[in-house]
Amino acid sequence: MTSETGSAGAPNPDELPKMSDKRLLRVLHGEAVWPPPVWLMRQAGRYLPEFRALRAQADFITRCMTPDIATEITLQPIRRYGMDGAILFSDILILPWAMGQSLEFVDGVGPVLEPVRRAADLDRLRPERVAEATAPVMETLRRLRRALDVPGEAALGVGQDGATALIGFAGAPFTVACYMVEGGGSKEFAETRRMAYAEPALFDRLIDLLTEATAAMLCAQIEAGAEAVMLFDSWAGLLPPAQFERQVIEPGRRIASEVRRRHPSVPIVGFPRLGGLLVGRYASQTGIDALALDTSADLALAAGLVPPGLALQGNLDPLCLLAGGDALPAAAETIRSTLRGRPHVFNLGHGVLPQTPPEHVGALVEAVRRPW
Amino acid sequence: MTSETGSAGAPNPDELPKMSDKRLLRVLHGEAVWPPPVWLMRQAGRYLPEFRALRAQADFITRCMTPDIATEITLQPIRRYGMDGAILFSDILILPWAMGQSLEFVDGVGPVLEPVRRAADLDRLRPERVAEATAPVMETLRRLRRALDVPGEAALGVGQDGATALIGFAGAPFTVACYMVEGGGSKEFAETRRMAYAEPALFDRLIDLLTEATAAMLCAQIEAGAEAVMLFDSWAGLLPPAQFERQVIEPGRRIASEVRRRHPSVPIVGFPRLGGLLVGRYASQTGIDALALDTSADLALAAGLVPPGLALQGNLDPLCLLAGGDALPAAAETIRSTLRGRPHVFNLGHGVLPQTPPEHVGALVEAVRRPW
Repeated sequence: MTSETGSAGAPNPDELPKMSDKRLLRVLHGEAVWPPPVWLMRQAGRYLPEFRALRAQADFITRCMTPDIATEITLQPIRRYGMDGAILFSDILILPWAMGQSLEFVDGVGPVLEPVRRAADLDRLRPERVAEATAPVMETLRRLRRALDVPGEAALGVGQDGATALIGFAGAPFTVACYMVEGGGSKEFAETRRMAYAEPALFDRLIDLLTEATAAMLCAQIEAGAEAVMLFDSWAGLLPPAQFERQVIEPGRRIASEVRRRHPSVPIVGFPRLGGLLVGRYASQTGIDALALDTSADLALAAGLVPPGLALQGNLDPLCLLAGGDALPAAAETIRSTLRGRPHVFNLGHGVLPQTPPEHVGALVEAVRRPW
Repeated sequence: MTSETGSAGAPNPDELPKMSDKRLLRVLHGEAVWPPPVWLMRQAGRYLPEFRALRAQADFITRCMTPDIATEITLQPIRRYGMDGAILFSDILILPWAMGQSLEFVDGVGPVLEPVRRAADLDRLRPERVAEATAPVMETLRRLRRALDVPGEAALGVGQDGATALIGFAGAPFTVACYMVEGGGSKEFAETRRMAYAEPALFDRLIDLLTEATAAMLCAQIEAGAEAVMLFDSWAGLLPPAQFERQVIEPGRRIASEVRRRHPSVPIVGFPRLGGLLVGRYASQTGIDALALDTSADLALAAGLVPPGLALQGNLDPLCLLAGGDALPAAAETIRSTLRGRPHVFNLGHGVLPQTPPEHVGALVEAVRRPW
């Protein structure tokens, strides 16, 4: 891979660490590791001053689509905290953008898209364009993998060669469809859910299209260097059980099955946020390797709903991280000890909040890594 | 009660229907009734043209605090659909307003309150004022009970004397605290949840104050005629399990226990929205009589988590009601048949949406009431 990024020469494969040396990957493959590996959703984000400095230089899509910038942003939290996972800096809406849907990130508002509401809107989407449009993302992944794994890539300053696993990701079809149909964020995503009831054939067509495009994009990320992939279904909890089966579990199962067929050794993490009572069914029916749990999930109950070899990820409250103080290491200890003896990736139940003091993240990582 | 509302004379108690004749109350007391009784959260609301007409005449707080208006609004859906339950037209924020917190409902924004963030802000709250400030609400309940139960109160046009039960309600302490601390609605209620972590003693003081005031207000509602009461914890799903225990279950348990001590025969419905895996624990530890389930809850799984005699309420998707069509009676049938043989109150998983066509509500009630 290094030849494509202008390196002086390809690394000797014997010098690259074996995948099984990375603690995060060992857990995702079903091994209980103590203390648990740790990374945080939105660890590369606005709470970091070095992120805010880069943010001023380029708009959101430019940051995602410029390998220099996206690589740097992805690595910022790895330099500071030596996380066990580095998650690609990108966005779940890069997929509809790559298919030709207009997308803008407006300060104080969030994403704004030209809504997809009729068959003619769907007809204009171009899934065949995704590979070319996301080529810069794949270049970012190649650079990241080299920065993380190749000994002596000192200029990147990561400082723990070969310990950090590279994570790719995508939004799950239902959640991406929510933004595509609504045209932006929403509390209820009423237009989207109305379409699912009133025009099920049209909505199924959108979900099918996203299911195939998402599987293809995750495979491309793996081929560019991602060692694990995560599927974010942030709005899964809006759905009643029958629609959860149809719009969350079934697309998740198809994506996991396609990724596994092409890349059988790469673990898949599923995050059906606010899936509540249905997380057990999601885990067993999709065939994912790890289940990410939101803040509200009781870990002991959730652990009882999934097979013992399935890794669990989560689920510290981002507000606990923001508040800091003595409650933070105490909450971290409760979480890691509840899952001791099981494969567990320490993470938050939702993303790091922008107002979080960076030193709280350091304190959290230290608490999670205490050997006793 | 009629003497207090200026009626010509007190009704003969023998003419009043026995509580046990009302299908909703039989279910809340643990009896399986077929077809299930039905009412809808926010059944008195903006989707009704007759509600919008009244809405233009008075602001929100005036509507809540004027017995003529609040009585009329509460009865509007009973006249149209003959619901089995009539829920008092009021708001969960009437309690902090009655304690002296400033409150305004701004069109397109929602409630706006002067935030309570410091001990001095709490000191200014006056729980001892609640009884007097909410006297008009109690008058509304007395009028409603008479309108629903006294034969020949034809002017009110309810048209099914003695079949509809009167439901009182309150916001649960955590959810009310969210609005009080934040100063309005929010996606994350970050200030509130930060306070709970960073200033637990202050937050506990607020929750304690609300717990006592809520129990007292629910008892007053019962004394004014409410035959069942419901506790809305709309934001319970934001909390991690340890805080769910402390800020949702424990206050719920204290409120249920106080209401039961003073009014042992009045059933209490608890609604820990998005409580997910924790709804079983909520139901068994609070001592409520009925558990209201949100849209995301799988009814068969939830039924397995609670004692067989505990009534379940819910949980049709409000978007399914909005969309209408063939999917609506089909979804209603799935819900009622899943819970057949158990005590079940048919309801939505969240409130009726303003854009809902009123005829869809009629179609739903008809579907729920089909005898076969």
